[in-house]
Formats: sequence, structure tokens, C-alpha cells
Amino acid sequence: MQSPTTFRETEILAQFAGDLAEVTDAMAMSYFRKSLEVEHKADASPVTQADRAIEAAMRERINSRFPTHGILGEEHEDARLDAEQVWVLDPIDGTKSFMTGMPTFGTLIACLSGGRPEVGVISIPPTGERWMGVRGRTTTLNGEPCRASGRVALAEATLYTTTPDTFDSAGHAKFEALSAKVGMRRFGGDCYAYGLLASGHVDIVFEMNLHPYDYLALVPVVEGAGGVITDWNGKSLSLQSDGRVIAAASAELHRSALAALA
Amino acid sequence: MQSPTTFRETEILAQFAGDLAEVTDAMAMSYFRKSLEVEHKADASPVTQADRAIEAAMRERINSRFPTHGILGEEHEDARLDAEQVWVLDPIDGTKSFMTGMPTFGTLIACLSGGRPEVGVISIPPTGERWMGVRGRTTTLNGEPCRASGRVALAEATLYTTTPDTFDSAGHAKFEALSAKVGMRRFGGDCYAYGLLASGHVDIVFEMNLHPYDYLALVPVVEGAGGVITDWNGKSLSLQSDGRVIAAASAELHRSALAALA
Repeated sequence: MQSPTTFRETEILAQFAGDLAEVTDAMAMSYFRKSLEVEHKADASPVTQADRAIEAAMRERINSRFPTHGILGEEHEDARLDAEQVWVLDPIDGTKSFMTGMPTFGTLIACLSGGRPEVGVISIPPTGERWMGVRGRTTTLNGEPCRASGRVALAEATLYTTTPDTFDSAGHAKFEALSAKVGMRRFGGDCYAYGLLASGHVDIVFEMNLHPYDYLALVPVVEGAGGVITDWNGKSLSLQSDGRVIAAASAELHRSALAALA
Repeated sequence: MQSPTTFRETEILAQFAGDLAEVTDAMAMSYFRKSLEVEHKADASPVTQADRAIEAAMRERINSRFPTHGILGEEHEDARLDAEQVWVLDPIDGTKSFMTGMPTFGTLIACLSGGRPEVGVISIPPTGERWMGVRGRTTTLNGEPCRASGRVALAEATLYTTTPDTFDSAGHAKFEALSAKVGMRRFGGDCYAYGLLASGHVDIVFEMNLHPYDYLALVPVVEGAGGVITDWNGKSLSLQSDGRVIAAASAELHRSALAALA
């Protein structure tokens, strides 16, 4: 049993995560809407020079400040994942948005403590919006407290998913079942949709095939705004989750959404 | 045969359209991310107070400055559509984006002369981006000339559509046929995708079930940036078009895209 992170330790981690985002926002904007040499990974997801440079910069700063902490990122090798604190990094979430000039991509920074997301940052460089979540505290958007809508009725809820193209046939069926019960659905969004949920504008986000670096930073942001975010079985998200994620603007809405999937 | 619009007349129309957008941007932002009393029209598309107030403001200014001009808008009744100049207005294009706090909705303003789009404005209030197209001239983004990518290879092209939910089964089949030949597709975007095309970031936009107020303002913007925008049969867009729209970043890419649909 490891000791829980103290208030002061959490404060330091959150401050550091915000400082990281300050650096990475500027880096991302130096690449955004510029010509990029784009390569394709084996899984066909596009990777940009920006992705790699930004993650390298984050790793360098983490290694320098917290040399015992672990790091898991999209672009480089895992380091010290058995550490008490592990940073989980997605330099550019929404690579397709980034590549097409759409200003809704973001940088995701999570710090786990004992396997649990302690700090989460969703930073949107083109709009200058930064959601900061800390476990047990109220989420902020650019320093101001923000709050999920608290909506409870599925029929009035707005549903986002980035793209149905990531769904398998079972996922499609669940997505259609959920869609049939909500008030509206819209595609696109990436991590931005979870920020909008934390600020009360979006009620449900439903996705599959996410990686830990895609979803762990979202947890403190959504929970600290009064929302609920789990896997499709209602279980807490961790490094071991299966990449199926559902977030909702209230506990009741989350229960209704899970029921619609069943 | 009516006389063509002179250079000086066009200048006046373009200036006026820009001034209109200045007013409507501020109005849109006064409603954006605020609680709205949302109603549902018979066709289930959401309509906001913002939509109606903004269109009313545009109509008042047009009627005052150009009392003989026609007006066609989303929210109010048609006026003088047999006039030589007809304004075609969409106060909030991307209502779902607007309602969910997504900063990619826009206001569309077109002025037709003799039935042909002479001036087109795509104005994105949350980002402060405004594309201005004037027939026969280079499109500008916030006053600076912009240019489509000029990409010619379908296999390298990025494709946008706002949502597959507007497609009938024939439309779906065509969309999938086109998707299979491009390098990447992404959902979401509304009018913003056409602005991104005019600035070289997106290569093809494919949609159906658009109304004249959704597509006429796009024509001078896309064409003045070196792109091509037509219906799915390659015909010029007019008030009488069937709402199936395809835009591409070059004439060759447009031909290849049309061939992929056939």
C-alpha cells in the first residue's frame, strides 16, 4: 500500500502540468496550419513532427523535474510505469483536426498517483482554452470554476463522438441504440468534446478504441465538473481499460446512457 | 438581359457584406455558450433565438440600405426574389455546433447578381476568422489573400462532411465510394470546412441536403481561392440547385471526385 498523494504534492503536480501546457501550446501553434511532413504509422493514424517534438519536450521537463516518475506517451517508449506517479501524455489529440486546420485539437496531460488519475489537463492551443482537473476539486477552465450541465434526461441530451469510423459492428449497434434515445448527436470533437462537457455545453461523449493517453487526462476534468466518466461497463478508467469510454453530465444521465447500451 | 454588376457596385456590395458580418459576429457571440430557449422546427432542426435575431438585424440593414434588393434567409419570409440583386443569409450555419459550444459555427452572407453569387462571406465569430469572396477576385481571410491547396491526387486528399446523418442511402453509397479513394476523412465542420478548403487545409467537402442559404455564400469564397464548387453533377450552384454540393481544392481534384461519385 503506497501512501496517498498529499494536498501539497498534488498542488505541485497540478502547477507543473499547467506549466507544461503553457510550453506545449506555444509549440503546437508553431506547427499548426504550416506545411508538415506527414508520415503514416502501421495503424494508419497520421503522426506529425509536432506530435513527436511536443512529447519530447514534455518528457525532457518531466525527467528533469521528477526523475523517479513514470511516463507513458503516444510517441515514445514507456518509462518507469511501476512508479507511484506516472505521467500520461498525448501531445496532439485530434491529429486529423490538427492536419486539416481545425482549431479543436488539444494536448492531454495526466498524472496518475497509485494508478489513479490525480491531475488532468485538456489544453486547446488555437482557442487558448485550458481545462484543469484535480481529483477531489472543482475543475477550472482558464482558472475559472466550470460545471457540467447536470442534465438527467437522455431525451434532452446532446451526444458527441469523434467519428463512427473507429467503431466495430458491436460498437456501431451500441452507438445507434444510444443515439436513438438522445436529443441530438454530432460528430467531431476529439478531446474538445470532453472540455465542452465539463463546461455544460455537451451532455454525453461516447467513444471506442481510445488509448490511455487519450482518456486518462479527461477523468479529473470531467469528474471535477460533476460529470461521470467510465468504460462502457461503468468501471473506472485506468491504464488497463479497454478504450471504450462514456462520459455524461450527471450520474443519473450516465446510468441511463449505460442502460441504453446494454 | 440585365446589366452586369460594375466593379464599383461590387465593391459596395462586398464592403456592405463585411460590415454586416461585423455586426452579426458581435450578436452571435452575445448568445454563444449562454443558456438559450431552444425550439424545434417541424423538420427537427434546432433554431435558436440567436438565429432569428441575427437574421432580423441583417434584413433591417439590407432593407434600409438597398430597399430594392431581394432577401432569402433561413428564418424569415422571402422578399423580392425577382430583384437583380438578392441577398441570401444564414445567420447561424452549424446550429448543432453553436448549441454545443463548438466554436466552428459561422454566419453566411451571399449577394447574388442576376442569379449568380457575386459576393460571399463566411464569418466565424468565435475564432474571428472571416473569409470574403468576390467573383473574379482572390479570396481573402481577414484581409489577406488565401489559396486552396491545389492538390490533384484523390489518394492524398482530405475529405470533410458535416455528418453522414443527412445522407439518404444513395448519398451514403456515393460518400463511401469517395471516402474509399481519399487519404483521410473527417466529420464535423459545417461552413468552416469550406473556409479551411479556401485556405489550403482541407481538399474536398461533400454534402447533401443543403439549402441555398447554406451553399451560395461558399461559391465566391471557394472559387476565388482557386477551388471548384458545384452540385454532384458538376453544375454551377444557384437558387435552384438540389442541395448536393461538392467542393475541391483544384479543378483536376474536382473532376476526379465527380468521377468517383459516378
